[in-house]
Amino acid sequence: MGNVAKGLVILGSTGSIGVQTLDVVRSFSKDFNIVGLAAGNNVKLLLKQIKEFRPKLVFSSGNQSELLSLLPEDCTICDMTDMVQHSDVDLVMIATVGEAGLKPTITALENDKQVAIANKEVLVMAGELITAIAKKKGQELQPVDSEPSAIWQCLIGEDKSISRIIITASGGALRNKSSDELKIVKPEEALQHPTWTMGQKITIDSATLVNKAFEVVEAHWLFDIPWNKIEVVGHPQSIIHSMVEFEDGSIKAQLSYPNMKLPIQYSLFYPRRMPNPQIPKLNLIEINTLNFKPLDHKLFPCFNLALETCIKGGTWPTVLSVANELAVQLFLESKISFLEIESVIKEIIQKHKALKNPSLTQIIEASKWVKTYAQQLMEL
Amino acid sequence: MGNVAKGLVILGSTGSIGVQTLDVVRSFSKDFNIVGLAAGNNVKLLLKQIKEFRPKLVFSSGNQSELLSLLPEDCTICDMTDMVQHSDVDLVMIATVGEAGLKPTITALENDKQVAIANKEVLVMAGELITAIAKKKGQELQPVDSEPSAIWQCLIGEDKSISRIIITASGGALRNKSSDELKIVKPEEALQHPTWTMGQKITIDSATLVNKAFEVVEAHWLFDIPWNKIEVVGHPQSIIHSMVEFEDGSIKAQLSYPNMKLPIQYSLFYPRRMPNPQIPKLNLIEINTLNFKPLDHKLFPCFNLALETCIKGGTWPTVLSVANELAVQLFLESKISFLEIESVIKEIIQKHKALKNPSLTQIIEASKWVKTYAQQLMEL
Repeated sequence: MGNVAKGLVILGSTGSIGVQTLDVVRSFSKDFNIVGLAAGNNVKLLLKQIKEFRPKLVFSSGNQSELLSLLPEDCTICDMTDMVQHSDVDLVMIATVGEAGLKPTITALENDKQVAIANKEVLVMAGELITAIAKKKGQELQPVDSEPSAIWQCLIGEDKSISRIIITASGGALRNKSSDELKIVKPEEALQHPTWTMGQKITIDSATLVNKAFEVVEAHWLFDIPWNKIEVVGHPQSIIHSMVEFEDGSIKAQLSYPNMKLPIQYSLFYPRRMPNPQIPKLNLIEINTLNFKPLDHKLFPCFNLALETCIKGGTWPTVLSVANELAVQLFLESKISFLEIESVIKEIIQKHKALKNPSLTQIIEASKWVKTYAQQLMEL
Repeated sequence: MGNVAKGLVILGSTGSIGVQTLDVVRSFSKDFNIVGLAAGNNVKLLLKQIKEFRPKLVFSSGNQSELLSLLPEDCTICDMTDMVQHSDVDLVMIATVGEAGLKPTITALENDKQVAIANKEVLVMAGELITAIAKKKGQELQPVDSEPSAIWQCLIGEDKSISRIIITASGGALRNKSSDELKIVKPEEALQHPTWTMGQKITIDSATLVNKAFEVVEAHWLFDIPWNKIEVVGHPQSIIHSMVEFEDGSIKAQLSYPNMKLPIQYSLFYPRRMPNPQIPKLNLIEINTLNFKPLDHKLFPCFNLALETCIKGGTWPTVLSVANELAVQLFLESKISFLEIESVIKEIIQKHKALKNPSLTQIIEASKWVKTYAQQLMEL
């Protein structure tokens, strides 16, 4: 590194993590060169980003004529798997949602690019496959999510004599609701996260605790930790982002205000830590209290459903993840109630015929099966 | 290391840290060989330790004929500075109290021995001198005290881009007393530490907060941190033992139940972490709450008095430390009140003519001056 700018591709540049990644890049403009930006349907914001950051390569799944009409001459449209392979690329930020980041993650690793991963469904669906490729390539997947980033930071310099990983959970938007209130909760309420500002899908996943189950899966794959050594503890303030207990009983924790710029920046600069006035310093006196309490698995059964399904391995986590994605979408469209998210997921996974050690193709096929089957369910 | 037992000398083996160090050694008997034990007046306990651990060398400032009468034939009496130089010695645990550990610490470093340091007055009196010798010798002083051990653990693997050290303070035995109650507090009350079981001197230093000022001084010298980057925050539960904030705003904290065996073991095995069933694992749900609050400098003025005097450097910290040692002794003997600890220290340091960059001899002379002057004061 030194004085050479790091070539970046951001997949999902118009989403919450993508926008904040560009915020960090803006603070350290000499350190990064944006090689490629890929977005979904928000062509308007993508065009704004293109104008400011002048990438060579872009992708959008949105309106192509709108994109082409305002695209600078020196900017080329290409798909995400081609984008991540470009020779100017050093690091790929996977900030997509759902399964969109799956193929590009694998392509980036196979082409010896650094991969920062914010899209946890990618690790949920294909954690075994992806970590095997990363290992073969001698690459370390760089987490962006605040909890795995905290674990990563706590592990720096330690010889991995880990006795326990403790992932903290705010409890999400509905943590203080009763069972009766949960029956009638509206999407607007479930989208009001108490401590974090995030995209819609992950905010609903936080409310169901599926997001927390996914973080257990992430930790399992990213840090090669056995399932039985990963715990989740409720921590309403979201100040301690996660902890690692070592074999001698010593625990290390990582703390900050809930602010995604910190883990994003850490993943971009790793192992360097850079001062950034945009990241507020923690005032412990002001915080005064940190609490810990158990999760309520009766009120939020999706945590166990998601985790137990993921632990089964093979194509199970893919089916769980895609079924959850669809159920969340149905809830956001007010087509099902909050408590029906669980039953929709259950209905789908009950019908699945799982494969062991799936290839990427088989993972994608399992995902397609879920979508087709869910479509049939909805038409009934 | 590997399979070779580490040769240990424990100075202060019958004190609280010494006894707990031997407890750790007992749990890992194949990893350590006790070469020497040195104690104060508790010859009875020292003889018990000699019988169990069979050191080659011993020292006691207590009853020599009692010691000699029961000393095994293969055990030799020698002074502490000779003991630490023995060729079988790999690591010296400085678990003495007050200035007793000063000379042996310097001798151990000069003879290329690893030094684990629990005796904070040594670093207070001669931090500049000792860290300069350690640096010249390429040695890293290994803290044993829980707060600097926490900082040390948080710094592992980091490149020291530190923005702040946050030392936590339980507040000591008298943290909930009013100003009127402090006037009449008895030694027995001041010796009831709320979270830690420790020796008498350090427990009174905790009650006056002089101990916390000394930890700031320790952190300054051990980790080469500027004074203005070290903060102290009240944390009544003593679960977070200290924290480090890095330049990116990320904070790492080290947590455990208050149990000295953990930092003792870490200093003995560093950088290895060893499972020890005697060290209980933290139950965060049971703990439920961690609090942070400011220190009350009006009620506990000795903190600022001690810290400001130490920051002046030269022979000031020595005079402060020895004056404090004497004042604590007078309080324990019920000769002065709790609030008079401050005035006794002030009276002594007001009369001191300080030297800059003192040699070891000059430090010891400053210490002698305090004792002589205090003697005169008491006779008035």
